[in-house]
Amino acid sequence: MTRSRISRVEVTPVAFRDPPLLNVVGVHQPWALRAIVEIHTDSGLTGLAETYADETHLARLAAVAAAVGGHDPYDLHGLRRLVTDVLGRETGGAGASFGGMLDVTSAVDTVFSPFEVACLDLQGRESGRPVVDLLGGMVRDRVPFSGYLFYKWAGHPGEEFDEWGEALTPDQVVAQARRMVDGWGFGSLKLKGGVLPPEDECAAIEALRAEFPDLPLRLDPNGAWSPETSLKVAERLAGVVEYLEDPTPGIEGMARVSAGTELTLATNMCVIAFEHLPPAVAANAVQVVLSDHHLWGGLRRTALLAGITETFGMGLSMHSNSHLGVSLAAMVHLAAATPNLTYACDTHYPWKTQDLVRPGSLDFVDGSVAVPTGVGLGVELDRDALALMHEQYLTCGVRRREDTVYMQSIDRSFTPNTGRW
Amino acid sequence: MTRSRISRVEVTPVAFRDPPLLNVVGVHQPWALRAIVEIHTDSGLTGLAETYADETHLARLAAVAAAVGGHDPYDLHGLRRLVTDVLGRETGGAGASFGGMLDVTSAVDTVFSPFEVACLDLQGRESGRPVVDLLGGMVRDRVPFSGYLFYKWAGHPGEEFDEWGEALTPDQVVAQARRMVDGWGFGSLKLKGGVLPPEDECAAIEALRAEFPDLPLRLDPNGAWSPETSLKVAERLAGVVEYLEDPTPGIEGMARVSAGTELTLATNMCVIAFEHLPPAVAANAVQVVLSDHHLWGGLRRTALLAGITETFGMGLSMHSNSHLGVSLAAMVHLAAATPNLTYACDTHYPWKTQDLVRPGSLDFVDGSVAVPTGVGLGVELDRDALALMHEQYLTCGVRRREDTVYMQSIDRSFTPNTGRW
Ligand SMILES: [Mg+2]
Ligand SMILES: [Mg+2]
Repeated sequence: MTRSRISRVEVTPVAFRDPPLLNVVGVHQPWALRAIVEIHTDSGLTGLAETYADETHLARLAAVAAAVGGHDPYDLHGLRRLVTDVLGRETGGAGASFGGMLDVTSAVDTVFSPFEVACLDLQGRESGRPVVDLLGGMVRDRVPFSGYLFYKWAGHPGEEFDEWGEALTPDQVVAQARRMVDGWGFGSLKLKGGVLPPEDECAAIEALRAEFPDLPLRLDPNGAWSPETSLKVAERLAGVVEYLEDPTPGIEGMARVSAGTELTLATNMCVIAFEHLPPAVAANAVQVVLSDHHLWGGLRRTALLAGITETFGMGLSMHSNSHLGVSLAAMVHLAAATPNLTYACDTHYPWKTQDLVRPGSLDFVDGSVAVPTGVGLGVELDRDALALMHEQYLTCGVRRREDTVYMQSIDRSFTPNTGRW
Repeated sequence: MTRSRISRVEVTPVAFRDPPLLNVVGVHQPWALRAIVEIHTDSGLTGLAETYADETHLARLAAVAAAVGGHDPYDLHGLRRLVTDVLGRETGGAGASFGGMLDVTSAVDTVFSPFEVACLDLQGRESGRPVVDLLGGMVRDRVPFSGYLFYKWAGHPGEEFDEWGEALTPDQVVAQARRMVDGWGFGSLKLKGGVLPPEDECAAIEALRAEFPDLPLRLDPNGAWSPETSLKVAERLAGVVEYLEDPTPGIEGMARVSAGTELTLATNMCVIAFEHLPPAVAANAVQVVLSDHHLWGGLRRTALLAGITETFGMGLSMHSNSHLGVSLAAMVHLAAATPNLTYACDTHYPWKTQDLVRPGSLDFVDGSVAVPTGVGLGVELDRDALALMHEQYLTCGVRRREDTVYMQSIDRSFTPNTGRW
C-alpha cells in the first residue's frame, strides 16, 4: 500500500469581529485573529487545523511549512522533532501572545499543535475514521460546553453597540447569561473576572446563582487577587462555584490558597506546560487543570495531560481562546475521547459572528456539540468565508493580540489588574 | 466507508520449554505458558496478541471474548469499559500469577491488554500501517534489548541438561553472558539476582564488568534485600551498574535506599500500576520504571506511563516475562514509538526453543530487533507451531506459573528470598 506524504502546506491568517470583552489585562481588540492550516498530501487529501495568528507565530508556522514536505502524516514524533529543529534557531517564548496573560517559555508545543491536528485529520480521512477514533474512541457522543460570560462595554469605542450590550453590573451579567442559556442551552456558566473589585464579582456570581439555582458556576479572575483576597472570596463562594479558576498568580500563590480552602481550584495559567506539573503536584497547588490542545502540543499530548491528571488525582477541564469552527471540531473530538474530562469545556464560540466551516456539523443543542460523524475532524472549509475573513485580516490592522495596548489606547491610566486586589 | 466489527475471538493457551532459571521466589517450571489471542472481524481481518495463560486469566479472557462481538476495534475506551464490566463480577487480583513476585490488585489492565493489542493490530491491518505508526511514529528503527542472565541449574531435575548448562558461580555467569553476547550481539546485560547472598551476586557483576568492560550492566534481586543491605550493595556497585532494580520491596523501602545512594534505582515491582505513581513520585522511590504493556493495560496506556515518567523526570525501561514472538513484536512497536525509552529492553526471548510466529520478521542483529515493516504488528502465526504448542499446553500439566511450588517440590525447605538478606 502506498503511504501518502505531505506535499504542501497553506497557512491562512483570518480576522473576525470580537466584542469588547474585558479581562485582567485589558479588553479584546475589535478583531480576533486565527490562522487556518491546510496540509495537502500527494494522495490528494487535505487536513485542517486552526491556531493562533500573531505575526511571530505565523512566521514560525511558515518556517515549519517550508520544511515539512515529504513528511509522513503518521509520523507525529518525527514532526515534533522537525518543529523542534526548525525552531531551534529561534529565541524567545511562544509567538502567540495570549493577550499578555500567559508566559509560555517554549514555542514548540504551540507551533507543533496545528500540524499535529491537521495530520490527525489526514489520518482520519485516509483511514475513513473520525479523529475521535484515532484518540481511542468516543466516551461521550456530545460534548457539553459552559456559557462564557464577560464583563463588557456596549460596543467598541466609536462603533455601534454590538447585539450583547453592556455588562458591568450583576443584573447585566445575569441578562447576558440568560441570553446565553436561552440561545444556546448551556448547562453551566463561567464568568471571566479580574475586571472589577472582587466583592463586585462575587455579587455577580451570587446574582447568577439566584437566577440559575441549578447551573454549575465558575469564576476566573486570571490571577487578579492576592492569596489573602482569594481565601476571602473562597469563603464567600464556598458551595456556590464548582471551582475558582486562577484566583492568584503562580504555583506558590495557588498552593497557599489551596492550603486554606476546601474549594476546588483550577488553572490554565500556572500549569500550562508539562514542566509545571511536577511542582504543581508537589505543592498541591490546583485540583483541576484546564487543558488546551493549541497550547499543550496537539490532541495526543493533551490526552497525555489528561492521563497525568487522572493518575495524580486532579480534575480536568478545557480552556478556550477566541476561536472558529476548525478549533471547535478538534476540541469536540478530543473531549469526546477523554474519559476524565468531566467538566463542561470553555468556549468563546457564541461571541463570534462569522465562521469559515461549512454549516451543519457543529450545532449547539442544549449547550453541547455532537461529535462530527464524518471522517477526520468532520468539518470542511467554506472557501468563500475563508477568503473573506483573510481579506478582513489583511485590512483590519491587527497583527497580534494586545489587550493591554488596546485598553491603554482608550484609558491611558490602565495597568493590568494582575495581583491588584 | 463500512467500519469493521469484531466477529469472533479465539484464545489459545500454549506451552513451551523453559530452562530451570532461578529467582527470588524459586525456579522456572519446565513449561512456560502463554496465550495467543486472535480477534477476527466481519471484514475478514485477524488481529493478534499474546498474554499470560494462568487458568484464572484464561477464564477472564474467555468471558471478555464472549462479550466483545460486534465491538468496533477502534473503540478502545469502550473496550476497556466492557472489560471492566465483565470483570466487575470477579473478585481478587490479577489472574496472572507472575510466579508470586507481583501483587497486582486489579485484573482490568492485564485482561484488557491483549484485546487492545489485537485491536491495534487490526487497525494497522485495516489502515495499511504498522502499529508503530498508530502510536505516533517511529523514533528508532531498531529496538535494543539487553541480554538477560540467570542463575540456573544445568537442567530440570530428572531431565537431560539444557544447552545453556549450569550457572551458579561468577565464571559460569560470565560464560552464559559470553554465549548471549556472541550469539545475539547484546550491547548490555542484566543479571537476575535474589538467588545467592548479595556478596556472591556482586562478585558475579564484577566478573561481568571485568569480562565486558564496555557493556552497561544491571542487577535485579527482586526485593531480596533489606534497605541496609541494598545500600551496601549500592556502594559496592556504584559506577559498575547502570541501575539497581528492586533491591528491596516496596515504595517505602526503595525510598529509603534512594535517599542514601546516588545509584539509579529501577522497579517493576513497587510501581506496577498507575495508582503507584503518585506515592513513588512523592517519595522519590525510583528513578527508572520498567514498563510492560501486558501489565499496564496495552500499548497506549504504556505510552501514557512513558509520558508520565518523562514529565516527572524518571527514566523508562521495559520489563519482560517469558514470551514468544507476538509479544516481542508488540514490545518492539511500542519501544520504537516511545521517545524516552532510552534503556535497552529486557527480554527472555533467547531462553525459549520454540516460537509460533513465522520466521523472518523478528531477527536479532547486534542485540536489537528491527521494527517489522508489515501492516499491524507485522507478524503472522505459524499455525502448525501454534497447534503443536497448544498440544504441549494440553499435555504438560502446568496450569499456572508457580515458581515457589515447583522449587519446593525439589527442595522442601525452600522459602522465597524476599527480604532475606
Ligand atoms: Mg482561565
Ligand atoms: Mg525486575
